[in-house]
Amino acid sequence: MLESGMSVSMDNAANLIGRYASNQPNAKTLIFGSHQDTVPNGGKYDGILGVVAPLALIHYFNQNNITFPYHIDVIAFSDEEGTRFQSTLLGSKAISGIFDPAMLDAKDAQQVSLYDALVDFGCQPELIERDAYVADDVLGFVELHIEQGPQLESAKLPVGVVSAITGIERHTITIHGKAGHAGTVPMNNRQDALVGASHVITLFDQLCKSDKDLVGVIGKIENFPNGVNVIPQRTDITVELRSPIDAKRVQARETFLKGVEQALTTLNLSYDHSQTYEQQAVQCSKTLSSKLVSAIEACGIESKTLFSGAGHDGLAVSSLTDIAMLFMRCTNGISHHPDEAILPEDLEASIKVLKEFCLAI
Amino acid sequence: MLESGMSVSMDNAANLIGRYASNQPNAKTLIFGSHQDTVPNGGKYDGILGVVAPLALIHYFNQNNITFPYHIDVIAFSDEEGTRFQSTLLGSKAISGIFDPAMLDAKDAQQVSLYDALVDFGCQPELIERDAYVADDVLGFVELHIEQGPQLESAKLPVGVVSAITGIERHTITIHGKAGHAGTVPMNNRQDALVGASHVITLFDQLCKSDKDLVGVIGKIENFPNGVNVIPQRTDITVELRSPIDAKRVQARETFLKGVEQALTTLNLSYDHSQTYEQQAVQCSKTLSSKLVSAIEACGIESKTLFSGAGHDGLAVSSLTDIAMLFMRCTNGISHHPDEAILPEDLEASIKVLKEFCLAI
Repeated sequence: MLESGMSVSMDNAANLIGRYASNQPNAKTLIFGSHQDTVPNGGKYDGILGVVAPLALIHYFNQNNITFPYHIDVIAFSDEEGTRFQSTLLGSKAISGIFDPAMLDAKDAQQVSLYDALVDFGCQPELIERDAYVADDVLGFVELHIEQGPQLESAKLPVGVVSAITGIERHTITIHGKAGHAGTVPMNNRQDALVGASHVITLFDQLCKSDKDLVGVIGKIENFPNGVNVIPQRTDITVELRSPIDAKRVQARETFLKGVEQALTTLNLSYDHSQTYEQQAVQCSKTLSSKLVSAIEACGIESKTLFSGAGHDGLAVSSLTDIAMLFMRCTNGISHHPDEAILPEDLEASIKVLKEFCLAI
Repeated sequence: MLESGMSVSMDNAANLIGRYASNQPNAKTLIFGSHQDTVPNGGKYDGILGVVAPLALIHYFNQNNITFPYHIDVIAFSDEEGTRFQSTLLGSKAISGIFDPAMLDAKDAQQVSLYDALVDFGCQPELIERDAYVADDVLGFVELHIEQGPQLESAKLPVGVVSAITGIERHTITIHGKAGHAGTVPMNNRQDALVGASHVITLFDQLCKSDKDLVGVIGKIENFPNGVNVIPQRTDITVELRSPIDAKRVQARETFLKGVEQALTTLNLSYDHSQTYEQQAVQCSKTLSSKLVSAIEACGIESKTLFSGAGHDGLAVSSLTDIAMLFMRCTNGISHHPDEAILPEDLEASIKVLKEFCLAI
């Protein structure tokens, strides 16, 4: 950052912020950035790519004496994944003014609180609130991130523009059957909880496959007593449903729950259901996104729009300002894994797109 | 036994044997009996009913000076369930001449061997082989047992005649999918092992429900990594299929495995399959069973024939002699549970049927 003509600071949430300042008085700020952390046993690009690539661009601007009528801040967010303190988006919430001070009491596995960890790192956690950007001073937030999925690779494109960050909801369903001897209870008398779960899993999978704006998974199943020769008495499953369009997600949920009711009633099974989580989708700014599209096309690349099925810092920053995201192709769609990989030419294309974007603002 | 005019002995496999002797020289032996043990947390009737009820009948015969041209032995088998030494039918194998001496090395949870346990109980395990009955001396074996299922209760009948003891086969199937981020992998690119397992469970359930001579269960499932937001990478299931007719079981297995191949291939999933167990069905003697039917009808009861979906001592005794089984209604079909219950009038009916049976031999 210093070598690229930026001023550098760390805020009290441990975000590292580099500013490529404008010469103009009262200039507003365009923010680039992503997170410094990734998951345990993760790869080399998740997050940090969205810090390093804009820095390379600033380095180029500085070397070529290109300045702007706005400041460019590059933020390396301190903690997005929430691995240590089990709460995500710590850094991006802080700069957006939505950091919850109660989070400072959260403790890691060694019983160190977030408060103490920040103090130990040189921060003054009680001042986090003051570090938030002022909305009127910000032009917008743009994040470059690897796609973490296979769509750009399938489309043979280096980059794509994100339309929205998915909404997510989670449910648990417990299906109650009746245990019994697997040899002596006639088939038509059975109340087999696992058979019920199988019907639910199949119908949920088919529902999610019926609309390109839905993705969902039943990732977890626990079966009791789980014996080779005992009719399953109880089966617990989790359900996770995502969509960039909240109305579609809600509609799909209703269709799903009706299907569950019908399928399990037909099988003479009872069940408990509860929704455990819901996060609304965040739409990316049409204005900023259309400028990304233009920048892509200016680089001679076909523009593709896709939604993000994963959460990102933009979820928090959307509370502060307009957001946009540029996805970059990653090899085999793999992320959160040491095999995470990118192509050098895709990195070059991404930086060129961001350059065109800055010049057009 | 002693009060009913029987001679009593214990053999070297700890079977307790009471003999109601015939006066005739060279008389053969009709054997009644069942097992003394049941499962942990079991009920009061599984097994021991088939010992006590024939003893009540012998008591009646003795009090009324009714003798037969054949001996009647009532055997309380020492260990049918295999709870302590993980090997079933110990007592009935011994009297049938198919006890495997290698079993004597089996150890319980406290590392006590079966050999030592038998010695401690007053037996000479090395002499077990000599205790087997001689086939030519035996007329047959008849076991009274609670049904452990709901069919007689549904039919409103106190007793039924068993046509066969089920054959059983077991399989394990491991379905290989591809783990991935539950938000970023498009639905049509997924290889979700749990979705594959659900298709397999559903098709197996439908197959077993398509023929009254089939019962089957997928009782055990293990899913990996089993995370709320991770596409399942691997799912292991067990499959148990039973039928009293071996040919039907084999045919059903083939249909099932073809269905598995087709369903998982369609879902772009690979899998491993192995058959882990197979036990042929044992047919009950038509001669003895028809005499049970006649005895039931002589008691003014409608006769019903059903197959046993559970294993019984008769599986072993069929190596020695013809077998027959009389099932008695149990409340709600419950067994292997403290709620196991019978009706006094059903016990009375069962003993009357056995009386008619003996008189007709």
